[in-house]
Amino acid sequence: MKLIRYGEVGGEEIGVQIDGINYSVASFGGDYNEAFFAEDGLARLEQFVKDNEGKLIELPADIRLGAPFTRPSKIVCIGLNYKDHAEETGAKIPAEPIIFMKSSTSLVGPNDQIMIPRNSTKTDWEVELGIVIGKKASYVEEAEALDFVAGYVLHNDVSEREYQLERGGTWDKGKGCDTFAPMGPFLATKDEFEDIHNIKLWLKVNGKTFQSGNTSNLIFSVPFVVAYVSQFMTLLPGDVISTGTPAGVGLGFDPPIYLKPGDVVELGADGLGEARQEVVSFKSH
Amino acid sequence: MKLIRYGEVGGEEIGVQIDGINYSVASFGGDYNEAFFAEDGLARLEQFVKDNEGKLIELPADIRLGAPFTRPSKIVCIGLNYKDHAEETGAKIPAEPIIFMKSSTSLVGPNDQIMIPRNSTKTDWEVELGIVIGKKASYVEEAEALDFVAGYVLHNDVSEREYQLERGGTWDKGKGCDTFAPMGPFLATKDEFEDIHNIKLWLKVNGKTFQSGNTSNLIFSVPFVVAYVSQFMTLLPGDVISTGTPAGVGLGFDPPIYLKPGDVVELGADGLGEARQEVVSFKSH
Repeated sequence: MKLIRYGEVGGEEIGVQIDGINYSVASFGGDYNEAFFAEDGLARLEQFVKDNEGKLIELPADIRLGAPFTRPSKIVCIGLNYKDHAEETGAKIPAEPIIFMKSSTSLVGPNDQIMIPRNSTKTDWEVELGIVIGKKASYVEEAEALDFVAGYVLHNDVSEREYQLERGGTWDKGKGCDTFAPMGPFLATKDEFEDIHNIKLWLKVNGKTFQSGNTSNLIFSVPFVVAYVSQFMTLLPGDVISTGTPAGVGLGFDPPIYLKPGDVVELGADGLGEARQEVVSFKSH
Repeated sequence: MKLIRYGEVGGEEIGVQIDGINYSVASFGGDYNEAFFAEDGLARLEQFVKDNEGKLIELPADIRLGAPFTRPSKIVCIGLNYKDHAEETGAKIPAEPIIFMKSSTSLVGPNDQIMIPRNSTKTDWEVELGIVIGKKASYVEEAEALDFVAGYVLHNDVSEREYQLERGGTWDKGKGCDTFAPMGPFLATKDEFEDIHNIKLWLKVNGKTFQSGNTSNLIFSVPFVVAYVSQFMTLLPGDVISTGTPAGVGLGFDPPIYLKPGDVVELGADGLGEARQEVVSFKSH
């Protein structure tokens, strides 16, 4: 099942995507939030969709999509989780996962604009596989970790490299700016994937391919990172763990290449759809 | 005005503290959440309390207090913001604020238990002044920053030093464990303070004073940090910025002193009340 949210910013309604077409399931009620995932919402929604087969209202193809779930309690990210990306940034292969956090206020829809922060010159891209948590997870074992996963989402972990690396703090300063977490187009439930460790991910800027990776090259696997993060903090239904980015970010070039207003970022992943973000200067919103 | 929340975990109701006595204002409706702060809730509540003078229901003195607001969108912390604390940890005085984030799942009531994570041996304390945001703040100037503050709260920024410093990532790994952010007893609105930069803070473990500081020694002031953080991410009503801890944490001793089950942490600050936390081993909750 593929879950979408559509409509104006802040007023999104819920829907599903079937065979590439978006349908409203607003009449199901509620939103894709912590309570939805915690209270067996995926199973109830699946039944609802079956019960309403042929009766769901089709949405216009050009309707705005929001992130496919409401603001989570947290967005936890794994740093340097692909060997080739660690190498391009000059970092060592980590002995255990690097954790940082993105402010949940950075979450936007998959095709929303990326705003370059004021006075920023080093805004960069990172295509990633995001894990969406399905039930409360604390001290989970790796062998059972997938039981706590609802599904997956395409994520551009937009990063301001000066803020992240040169401003004397942790990475969080360059990761949580407004619009820095476009997610979607949809949340794909885990049953849609035969092998989550064989997912191609790609990202283009202005039509040129910069990232082309595969989750088969993850240093720390999906169940490992879920289990790992759950040792340090309780994961709530609807929380996101973003698993890291493969090589090809702007920081890795000599000289580095960063986003500027007017650029267009396109990204996608097997089974997770595609997204397109226009880059603009910061504006109040 | 002093805002409290009382009752069982997850089922807290709202109240106010007047002359040291807690009263219910559950009939005011709602909760101390983002909408409350955004929709002028403090002014409406003040009027409600006036209109109901002498008629509010007094709460039992031993009632459990929750954190004085609901789970915020984020808890942003400033690291090494007191010169004496930076020195005791062997760190340099930062040239600009260090930002890290605490998972919002770490938030608990002021007198709840602190749980030592499994296999942890380095759980430490940090008494701090927390700033509670009153309205949406993005690229705020320092001169106007206090307009965006609702009030202040006492915070024990509990920290696992091995996770924070020795586990190959950002500090977030050691800051967001469950129960690591006891806040309260109350949120004191900013009008209650003549000078927020002359607040004594103290913390005792098992009756012995370990921390005794004053916000007059903050390297970066309250309006400065609000303005600063708002350059990197939008602050929402109800969000918390914790301003850093003065000297006297366990890490600063030789050998370091860490919390163990059975310890009792007491802390307080001028105008922000007192809190008391018993230390226990981790238990599922």
